[in-house]
Amino acid sequence: MPEQITLYSAKICPYAQRAEIALAEVGADFKRYEIDLSNKPEWYAPKVNPASKVPAIAYGGPDVAPDQPSPESTKIPESLVLLQLIPELYPGKSSLIPKDPIVLAQARLFIETFSNTFSPAWVAFIFKGEEGAEEKLRSAIETVIKAKTHKYAVSDEFTIADAAVVPFLARLELLLTTDTGKFAPGQGSKFIASLKADASFNSFFEYLNLLKERESFKQTWHPDEVLAHFRKRLAELNAQK
Amino acid sequence: MPEQITLYSAKICPYAQRAEIALAEVGADFKRYEIDLSNKPEWYAPKVNPASKVPAIAYGGPDVAPDQPSPESTKIPESLVLLQLIPELYPGKSSLIPKDPIVLAQARLFIETFSNTFSPAWVAFIFKGEEGAEEKLRSAIETVIKAKTHKYAVSDEFTIADAAVVPFLARLELLLTTDTGKFAPGQGSKFIASLKADASFNSFFEYLNLLKERESFKQTWHPDEVLAHFRKRLAELNAQK
Repeated sequence: MPEQITLYSAKICPYAQRAEIALAEVGADFKRYEIDLSNKPEWYAPKVNPASKVPAIAYGGPDVAPDQPSPESTKIPESLVLLQLIPELYPGKSSLIPKDPIVLAQARLFIETFSNTFSPAWVAFIFKGEEGAEEKLRSAIETVIKAKTHKYAVSDEFTIADAAVVPFLARLELLLTTDTGKFAPGQGSKFIASLKADASFNSFFEYLNLLKERESFKQTWHPDEVLAHFRKRLAELNAQK
Repeated sequence: MPEQITLYSAKICPYAQRAEIALAEVGADFKRYEIDLSNKPEWYAPKVNPASKVPAIAYGGPDVAPDQPSPESTKIPESLVLLQLIPELYPGKSSLIPKDPIVLAQARLFIETFSNTFSPAWVAFIFKGEEGAEEKLRSAIETVIKAKTHKYAVSDEFTIADAAVVPFLARLELLLTTDTGKFAPGQGSKFIASLKADASFNSFFEYLNLLKERESFKQTWHPDEVLAHFRKRLAELNAQK
């Protein structure tokens, strides 16, 4: 049995949701502590994660209150590191790590491709409202479609590749549908409607719907908090103009 | 037994050397094909790696000549993906993947820290001669020292963390010592001499020397080719000014 796990997380954060999905998939028993990202507790950076980001875990050590982390536990940050570590701590408990090393390599490549194409494109469209961002985002989604080779991303089972992308894809759909972003009023909902009307994006929406049905996703998805957070952040960005 | 492996590599490339070190550590039987990065064969991008970079492997499929890759083999690019895949294909043959999942997570974090700090700093100093680059590089080396916790990076054994960094650290030492870089004449050798004279960098040079003694490094290290390549590249950069 693995030692105690305390997860420092935030409902709004897609990176943190990756770790939460992994913990749900393996059925881990863990303590969860919500970090308010706009008002972080002063002990968080010095005692848990010097980079002051979520997710991070405290692993092992004595049974302490999450807001009094012990120096004896091992602190591990970084969503992609945790996404692999958690199933490795619970071998045989989930399909997250494909048994075939080649399929596992393909899962890592899928995540790499996603990080290099989708992440900059969604930031450009949602947060920056950059010129040409809509075309960039469409092309990034096409890259995801092309990289996906099975029912799930790289396998007929749910792997780290799927867990890595669903927090971002679900946020994208939510923000576009509700026209929450640094784009012209109505441009988000119009853009997603145009994708849905285009048959070449069918497989993307089928994949997204399959991911959203996953229990581990549903248990860790907080659309009201996500929406409230992004609306506040956009209001701040607009106030800075 | 794993299926056939053909490695597409280049003696000058630090990323490719990561994969070569992994193959040497596990004692893999493989074919090696040298890609001339300044004059790539026209079949390489369409048939092996669309990104046209090294390293990449062709795994499995029929026994073919490396310059006639079969569509039946699986093509896997990306140095960090290969650095994990290769020992996973040869379980128990090397110390590359720490048995303890927490130590493995720490190895992945070490690589992440290195990629985020050392890589931009060495590009700034060697290739761009940027203002303040020397201080940035010194600080990046301090980060490596701080992140290292054992005889090797994260363990008393040689892991993926060490294999990931030695190709870059060895190139840095070679280029500084020979004053090969986009900095003022003599600045490279003067800089490395100042580090060597500073006791707080002792543990860095001890670590570097330990890494350079590793058989898998020595077998895959081609300083003459590396130096000739960087001199040519710098001459081209200077000609563009």
